[in-house]
Amino acid sequence: MSGGEKITVVKIGGNVIDNEAALDRFVRDFAQLPSPKVLIHGGGKLATRLAEQLEIPTTMVEGRRVTDEATLDVVTMVYAGLVNKRIVAKLQAQGCNALGFSGADGNMIPARRRNPEPIDYGFVGDISSSEINTTLLDTLLTSGITPVFCAITHDAKGTLLNSNADSVASAVAVASATIAPTNLVFCFEKQGVLRDVEDEGSVIGLITRADYPALRSEGVISKGMIPKIDNAFYAIESGVESVSIKHSEEVANPQAGTTIRNE
Amino acid sequence: MSGGEKITVVKIGGNVIDNEAALDRFVRDFAQLPSPKVLIHGGGKLATRLAEQLEIPTTMVEGRRVTDEATLDVVTMVYAGLVNKRIVAKLQAQGCNALGFSGADGNMIPARRRNPEPIDYGFVGDISSSEINTTLLDTLLTSGITPVFCAITHDAKGTLLNSNADSVASAVAVASATIAPTNLVFCFEKQGVLRDVEDEGSVIGLITRADYPALRSEGVISKGMIPKIDNAFYAIESGVESVSIKHSEEVANPQAGTTIRNE
Repeated sequence: MSGGEKITVVKIGGNVIDNEAALDRFVRDFAQLPSPKVLIHGGGKLATRLAEQLEIPTTMVEGRRVTDEATLDVVTMVYAGLVNKRIVAKLQAQGCNALGFSGADGNMIPARRRNPEPIDYGFVGDISSSEINTTLLDTLLTSGITPVFCAITHDAKGTLLNSNADSVASAVAVASATIAPTNLVFCFEKQGVLRDVEDEGSVIGLITRADYPALRSEGVISKGMIPKIDNAFYAIESGVESVSIKHSEEVANPQAGTTIRNE
Repeated sequence: MSGGEKITVVKIGGNVIDNEAALDRFVRDFAQLPSPKVLIHGGGKLATRLAEQLEIPTTMVEGRRVTDEATLDVVTMVYAGLVNKRIVAKLQAQGCNALGFSGADGNMIPARRRNPEPIDYGFVGDISSSEINTTLLDTLLTSGITPVFCAITHDAKGTLLNSNADSVASAVAVASATIAPTNLVFCFEKQGVLRDVEDEGSVIGLITRADYPALRSEGVISKGMIPKIDNAFYAIESGVESVSIKHSEEVANPQAGTTIRNE
């Protein structure tokens, strides 16, 4: 890419995808962001609902879902098909030249199937930012394309894999930081990392590496927020300029939400 | 694209997609074809099966399926999700740098929703080769990418549409012929256009515009073969160098099947 431009990588979470009004608003705001930019989307509850309708049993191991073959088909249909194409069509209608991707497309995100020992999670793929196809990413961004990724990847041997959308976002941001300075924004249905989960006004504006252990031991950062913050620190330590966590309605507001800094 | 190269546009029909062994063989053969090349795939019976499992009623008008909103979701999941990504992953495993597309992606194939008068077929889109994004197609082919299209398109106003895969193949071939000389190959489960549908040895080697009326009035070309041949003539009359119709196992054999010529 020709120099000077910054790349914005945005992850939009599943709860926003389940709410059409919220998704439409987010899409309008995202379409207005300056290019070059990249969108990564989660799945939402559509896949769970479809699996239920198809009577595909859900197997949980240590609180995490196992992706068997039938489940892989469901998430491929919902994430790479329905959700990805709906978002792409909505962005196109807003004048944003979106192009949808699974990790198999253009070999953009090769993944490694997770070791089945000690726990076999099935068709789950772990990714490494160093394996992302930055040449193609650069070509697309230079052509004015906005890539839109779901979290379906592949093992490059013919098998699709289910990956974590936050991890895809971090890895894509790290890869994009080798092309141009990159900001990573995690958007979801809350105002940021909250000191009190019941109080949307209690946003923690800044989290540094030094703050993190105390926030975890106090239980302020727990459950699903832990991998998000881990991904954020990984991204910053790997060359991403800034990471923020904010409400989907604030995607265009640089002051909003929680900023993660490595100091 | 830099001069001299020919583009091969291949359509693979639904019956081959339903048969994993046949699809694997086709994918291996297609991967060996010289680049630049483009693949368009049909849907197969997976969408019908999924609609049945989800108890989505099928509405037929004058023998043709109506694409209501629930059906549009099903075909988007199956064609743009499951089938497209499976084929892309299989091609990647064969060293072919495939990238899957709906018509919404990169605004590659804008379509017009079919007039609801006299018959409302729902979310069905008709396409025109002149509206295909040849600039992006050229960029991708120059980058060594093999685009893989399903027949889901969009109206560029945010709505996905269901289109006919043969028509997508013809339109993409006509657009590609403005980039470089293009051959269009329709692959399916028969050896070509047969004089006697019961006899795979009765392939008609050549059909010209002059032969066509007699073949239709004799009933040799009937039903589903009529739009295929119409699409073939349209392609040739619009700049495509040659069109052939052949068995999926013969994709790499220029002598096999039926050739359509405009003389």
